[in-house]
Amino acid sequence: MGDATTAMEFDLIELIRQRTAQPRDDVRLGIGDDAAVLAVPAGQELAVAIDTLVDGVHFPRGTAPADIGWKALAVNLSDLAAMGASPAWALLSLTLPQADSAFVEGFVEGFVQLAQPHRLALVGGDTTRGPLTVSIAVHGFVPPGQALTRQGARVGDVVLVTGTLGDAAAGLHVLQQPARHDDGSSLREFLVGRLNRPTARVAAGIALREQAHACIDVSDGLLADLGHICTASGVGAEIDAALLPRSSALLGLYDNTTALQFALSGGDDYELCFCVPASRLAQVQADLSRLGGGATRIGRIVAGAGVRVRGRDGTWLESGSSGWEHFA
Amino acid sequence: MGDATTAMEFDLIELIRQRTAQPRDDVRLGIGDDAAVLAVPAGQELAVAIDTLVDGVHFPRGTAPADIGWKALAVNLSDLAAMGASPAWALLSLTLPQADSAFVEGFVEGFVQLAQPHRLALVGGDTTRGPLTVSIAVHGFVPPGQALTRQGARVGDVVLVTGTLGDAAAGLHVLQQPARHDDGSSLREFLVGRLNRPTARVAAGIALREQAHACIDVSDGLLADLGHICTASGVGAEIDAALLPRSSALLGLYDNTTALQFALSGGDDYELCFCVPASRLAQVQADLSRLGGGATRIGRIVAGAGVRVRGRDGTWLESGSSGWEHFA
Repeated sequence: MGDATTAMEFDLIELIRQRTAQPRDDVRLGIGDDAAVLAVPAGQELAVAIDTLVDGVHFPRGTAPADIGWKALAVNLSDLAAMGASPAWALLSLTLPQADSAFVEGFVEGFVQLAQPHRLALVGGDTTRGPLTVSIAVHGFVPPGQALTRQGARVGDVVLVTGTLGDAAAGLHVLQQPARHDDGSSLREFLVGRLNRPTARVAAGIALREQAHACIDVSDGLLADLGHICTASGVGAEIDAALLPRSSALLGLYDNTTALQFALSGGDDYELCFCVPASRLAQVQADLSRLGGGATRIGRIVAGAGVRVRGRDGTWLESGSSGWEHFA
Repeated sequence: MGDATTAMEFDLIELIRQRTAQPRDDVRLGIGDDAAVLAVPAGQELAVAIDTLVDGVHFPRGTAPADIGWKALAVNLSDLAAMGASPAWALLSLTLPQADSAFVEGFVEGFVQLAQPHRLALVGGDTTRGPLTVSIAVHGFVPPGQALTRQGARVGDVVLVTGTLGDAAAGLHVLQQPARHDDGSSLREFLVGRLNRPTARVAAGIALREQAHACIDVSDGLLADLGHICTASGVGAEIDAALLPRSSALLGLYDNTTALQFALSGGDDYELCFCVPASRLAQVQADLSRLGGGATRIGRIVAGAGVRVRGRDGTWLESGSSGWEHFA
């Protein structure tokens, strides 16, 4: 069965190798052997993650190959960002229905656009025949004991998020209902761009080392992901709906209730949600502002369990069939 | 889109975590956060590889889940073996059409059966919804400069392989033509077992550090894989058909011509093919015999390019439509 895929594998991996050359001293042996050989710098631990994207599940069918290449790497870099790790190496496993060099050219273009500014080297991988699927494993460095986890949130911590929330869910909605939004094409483009080309908050994650008590990236939606922090840390959280950062594109195309729904429950934003002691709030916000993206205070950690959302009038909201509503 | 997979992801990863607990001091943070945090021992380099198996491409549809779990790990361990690396950690990305805990139970059983004797820890991964696909990334350790590569074969080296060749291709043939082989069920079982549960030659690879000039695992077939060594090393190779190690099961169920075809061109054997200077031949064979599997001398490295096969009568064979035949 190896034979059926060998010829395809050779050409595509060679194409990828040519396009992704990213010299790093710590790569002793890169693409082209049975495994890559790598040297972790002295005094660093290794953060590793793997994520798979499936056609029609993790990106809409018909997504441009370059967008798939970018996004497949971005969701993995976002995992490193959430740990406070600095990116180093990636392995790529690309499954395609047939040897399609045009697809691979586009895919690699998007991959490289994101990999290069992060000095991330592609060190190995394989291509196989099958339904369109992308698996990437990423490796980053973090000083011993400084990795950000989900476990350290403490009662009294302030909860913050980078960037804006709900854009990617709105971008998906825009794609699924194209006719409804013929006005506002630049707003639509912004939201679809947030879906297809998420920003991995790598610099923010690194800046949060030794600052944040807990950190996660928002891949499944703010409530789900902040819920993971609460579970892992044995705490609860209270969020103020009025404080949620939402883009002008989101608010320009959607009513407040829908925009709130996207911001609380939409996935794929890949912003960081993190908890810091109140005494560090000003410093952390200043640090992240200098890096460009900034961070917004959205709530606090409390005793108990789970995540509650407070509406503008101070009453608690609950999730209903038409979105987030006042608790009846 | 994250939402659609979240519930499934949580239960399956938790199940996998419970079943694969393999304590290792070098795992600072395992399954359950955005990334694993790992410590490479001082004085070791890291060998990393990724391989993806697709249903119906890399294993026949209907393969038992436990066999898929074993094989998906084995093909990756085989990559580490070919580098002379000792296994340490794996990441698993499992894509399933639906949340199927019976499948996952079986898969994990096979995975763990192979992982435990190698002290390999599963440190992270994800499960997603989509066509059945398994991606595994493995990490192993190798002392600096001692990794086996494809590049170092020299004219005069002896070419050896571990184990026997052609069994997996015959096993696939048996599965595809079940009616033809109602006799010899134990032979059939052996061959199908070699297809579904390959042995990764990890101990042999480690023993070959500083002994072999070049090494590769036989995943695409001996001629293709030895051809990779020749290309990478800038040499040619001559193989004696009469020397190819073939199992009694293979020779019991197939005529000599077919068995030769499987041994030369069949994939999926995951034996090691390697090159050593003639002066080390006896020592290397003794070392590998002590480890259990042994290794067989099959030919030698020559000046030139490509792989030639010598028949029993000393003439060169060539590949024809009905298999390997005498050069006309």
